[in-house]
Amino acid sequence: MVQDLDLNIAFDPQSIAVVGASSDDAAEKKGWVGRLQEFGFKGKIYPINPKASVILGLKAYPSVKAVPDPIDYAIVSIRSSFVPGVLRDCIAKGIKVVHIFSAGFAETGMDEGRRLQEEVISIIKEGKIRILGPNCMGIYNPKTGLTFNTRFSRESGNVGIVSQTGAGMMELVPHANARGIRFSKVISYGNALDISAAEFVEYFAKDAETKYIFCYVEGVNDGIRFFKAVRDCNKTKPVIILKGGLTEGGSGAVSSHTASLAGSELVWKAFFNQTGAIQVDTLTEAVEQIVAVEKLREIKGRRIGIVARGGGVGVVATDTCERAGLKVPALTKETRAELAKITPADAGSSIRNPVEIGLGRFGVSEYYATGLRLVADDPNIDVVMAVINPHVYTQEGIGAKEIDQSAQVLIDTAKTLSKPMVVVVTLGDDIDVIGMELAAQEKILNAGVPAYATVEAAIQAISKMAKYWEFRRSL
Amino acid sequence: MVQDLDLNIAFDPQSIAVVGASSDDAAEKKGWVGRLQEFGFKGKIYPINPKASVILGLKAYPSVKAVPDPIDYAIVSIRSSFVPGVLRDCIAKGIKVVHIFSAGFAETGMDEGRRLQEEVISIIKEGKIRILGPNCMGIYNPKTGLTFNTRFSRESGNVGIVSQTGAGMMELVPHANARGIRFSKVISYGNALDISAAEFVEYFAKDAETKYIFCYVEGVNDGIRFFKAVRDCNKTKPVIILKGGLTEGGSGAVSSHTASLAGSELVWKAFFNQTGAIQVDTLTEAVEQIVAVEKLREIKGRRIGIVARGGGVGVVATDTCERAGLKVPALTKETRAELAKITPADAGSSIRNPVEIGLGRFGVSEYYATGLRLVADDPNIDVVMAVINPHVYTQEGIGAKEIDQSAQVLIDTAKTLSKPMVVVVTLGDDIDVIGMELAAQEKILNAGVPAYATVEAAIQAISKMAKYWEFRRSL
Repeated sequence: MVQDLDLNIAFDPQSIAVVGASSDDAAEKKGWVGRLQEFGFKGKIYPINPKASVILGLKAYPSVKAVPDPIDYAIVSIRSSFVPGVLRDCIAKGIKVVHIFSAGFAETGMDEGRRLQEEVISIIKEGKIRILGPNCMGIYNPKTGLTFNTRFSRESGNVGIVSQTGAGMMELVPHANARGIRFSKVISYGNALDISAAEFVEYFAKDAETKYIFCYVEGVNDGIRFFKAVRDCNKTKPVIILKGGLTEGGSGAVSSHTASLAGSELVWKAFFNQTGAIQVDTLTEAVEQIVAVEKLREIKGRRIGIVARGGGVGVVATDTCERAGLKVPALTKETRAELAKITPADAGSSIRNPVEIGLGRFGVSEYYATGLRLVADDPNIDVVMAVINPHVYTQEGIGAKEIDQSAQVLIDTAKTLSKPMVVVVTLGDDIDVIGMELAAQEKILNAGVPAYATVEAAIQAISKMAKYWEFRRSL
Repeated sequence: MVQDLDLNIAFDPQSIAVVGASSDDAAEKKGWVGRLQEFGFKGKIYPINPKASVILGLKAYPSVKAVPDPIDYAIVSIRSSFVPGVLRDCIAKGIKVVHIFSAGFAETGMDEGRRLQEEVISIIKEGKIRILGPNCMGIYNPKTGLTFNTRFSRESGNVGIVSQTGAGMMELVPHANARGIRFSKVISYGNALDISAAEFVEYFAKDAETKYIFCYVEGVNDGIRFFKAVRDCNKTKPVIILKGGLTEGGSGAVSSHTASLAGSELVWKAFFNQTGAIQVDTLTEAVEQIVAVEKLREIKGRRIGIVARGGGVGVVATDTCERAGLKVPALTKETRAELAKITPADAGSSIRNPVEIGLGRFGVSEYYATGLRLVADDPNIDVVMAVINPHVYTQEGIGAKEIDQSAQVLIDTAKTLSKPMVVVVTLGDDIDVIGMELAAQEKILNAGVPAYATVEAAIQAISKMAKYWEFRRSL
């Protein structure tokens, strides 16, 4: 192992050998060679298969050693029992990083798998080589065209991910893309036999492209290094962490997934307290939190102003806020007097906080922006949440155009408001209207304003950002 | 007041006076008269407006007293200061139930509003009349065509709702309709000046059409009566309750919404413990819980078997289960041996629980049903959750037909399984695929099998049903 290897080679290899490329072109189109071709990998690709001479138009070789040119990176997708032999070939060839896609090691819980993992460890101890995996999907780097899924966006962004689940990333990345998030690099690192989460966090801390980090970890081999890496990084770049296997049952599931030691709940509690990392509980929540770290301006306190339609909806939102550690204080007399001027007197509208502002017949009226500004300017308020539900009005004629206009009003207002603002566009029940509402969310997100589909998701994300900024200010 | 009045008159009036019908036909089309006409109300409608002779083709009258025929029910939609006078007219006319839609009473927090509410109370004390509201949307009864929103389903079902939020129902009912839920009666009762939640729960307990009840309450005037009504009803018909205003901030929001006394968190905790009612925290959660009470068979214990794709996804689902009070025990050796026969050996698939079963190239393979059956038959398992995510496969060719076939396999399996089962079809990021996935959910729901869009929602609902059945068995 060369611990000081520049990880850039893993993200930006000039050449890749795919060991175990299928000789069936139709199958390999969905395999590693096909994926790299389709996604536009910029370097050279060498399919390795002793039974084929050409794969997807590329010359195939019986082994990496048979390739005449130098190779930076290998993707190994063969039966686990063949991995040690291939690794020895890779070392002989001078390959710098090997991504072992194959599963069938310690995570199986079987003697044979454990023995194979030990053998791999002893092989790489001797050679100048670094290992990603085994049992993982490897690397997605839109800039260099390296990917494990062709559905991922070709555009590059500022979010880096280090994840011990690859399948989870197959869902998370496209979902995050649809929520306006673009990635610098995403790493699925599996059993973490060599390169670990800590090293990747250290890399992201220095990486100019990466400004926000999300980690999904099940177990950590080098706890102190990981702790220090996260603590240092989180001071300038927010680190969101989902720790899988925190519960008793979850820790059992971890051992059969990546053979990691899950660690105790108490230890992890201290970890989060001391590093200030943002803890999330599900992959869905992770995406919502990434939206907030990237798009929500610094929150100076926990007092939220809610602008929503419907008294009961406001009551429930208030309870949800308070349960999440936010406060929903009454607005000042002065603000209320101003709000009273733009809300209908007899309609049962509340102006205390939550605030109801006349939406006009078809969405967001001219009063809405004024109302939001009044709430944001109130000295009792640190952050504003505006909730709209266009589907309630759709039967009365509102359509894509009106919803889009509402989104524009919210964007324009959010950008010039004195306090940070989050928008919630709840989703209706008719697929056409849902399409319009998702488009509105996308527009808002792409304009750099955090947008959510539920009040609960928005409140969770806001509450965790409030805590994060308290930590940052305490340093 | 006639406390012994048969509430059936409120749900099935033969004639309705709309006091405050607009003389502008275009406006009134969206008003009470127009709504009743559009929704197909089967009785007579009398628009009341001193300035019009005909409204939407119906003869209008200057007051209810001027109507020559008897009237069962009045909807009052006028400025609050005129309400006392109209109420006196209604009593003189012999109207049995008056729904006061108008706001502007105690909930305003103003002296004038409080005085008006007191006046209304003193008027109805003398007369033979019952009041629904003020400050509420009234009644939705698909059987009789009475509604406050024309987007609600015309089909009748078995769920009854008593709600102190009307705006919340505008979202909840169509949302629940899309989730396969149909209603017997929905009541928005606002400030609860006369007919209260307790009385409606008592009504539902006896109502043959209603088998499941959801209450949204902010405050309860007659606590002991409500407690008894819920406790008795819940023994045979599950009662789900969302108590709005449980937090300090929420209780403030309640007073400006329906002028209710929110009550302390401790009192409500005891209430839920002793009645066994199912507590939910948001209106979205309420819908998910209604799906479960209606469609999930009795759960005999808290041990769940999870069948999902992706080790990390399984780990997170396990943690979520354990946090919700469910257990994810390892399957027996015998079950695992059987599962091993149908799962690929080297693919890193777990068969411990959570279980990964080969889905086949395009969704649910023939092994999937076998796998679900093995998990359900395991003596360590009480309930099964199957999670599919078709959008992960859509780029490889899966389409509406394949997703529909997967849904059918899950339906057929669920219906013949030895244990209750919940299906999760997660939603993708592309609107076309989301449409297919929502259609699959709808198909599953309409076949009587509980289906959810997120693992978290499914787990919450299952966990609360486990608790409910423990309560039922303890009686």
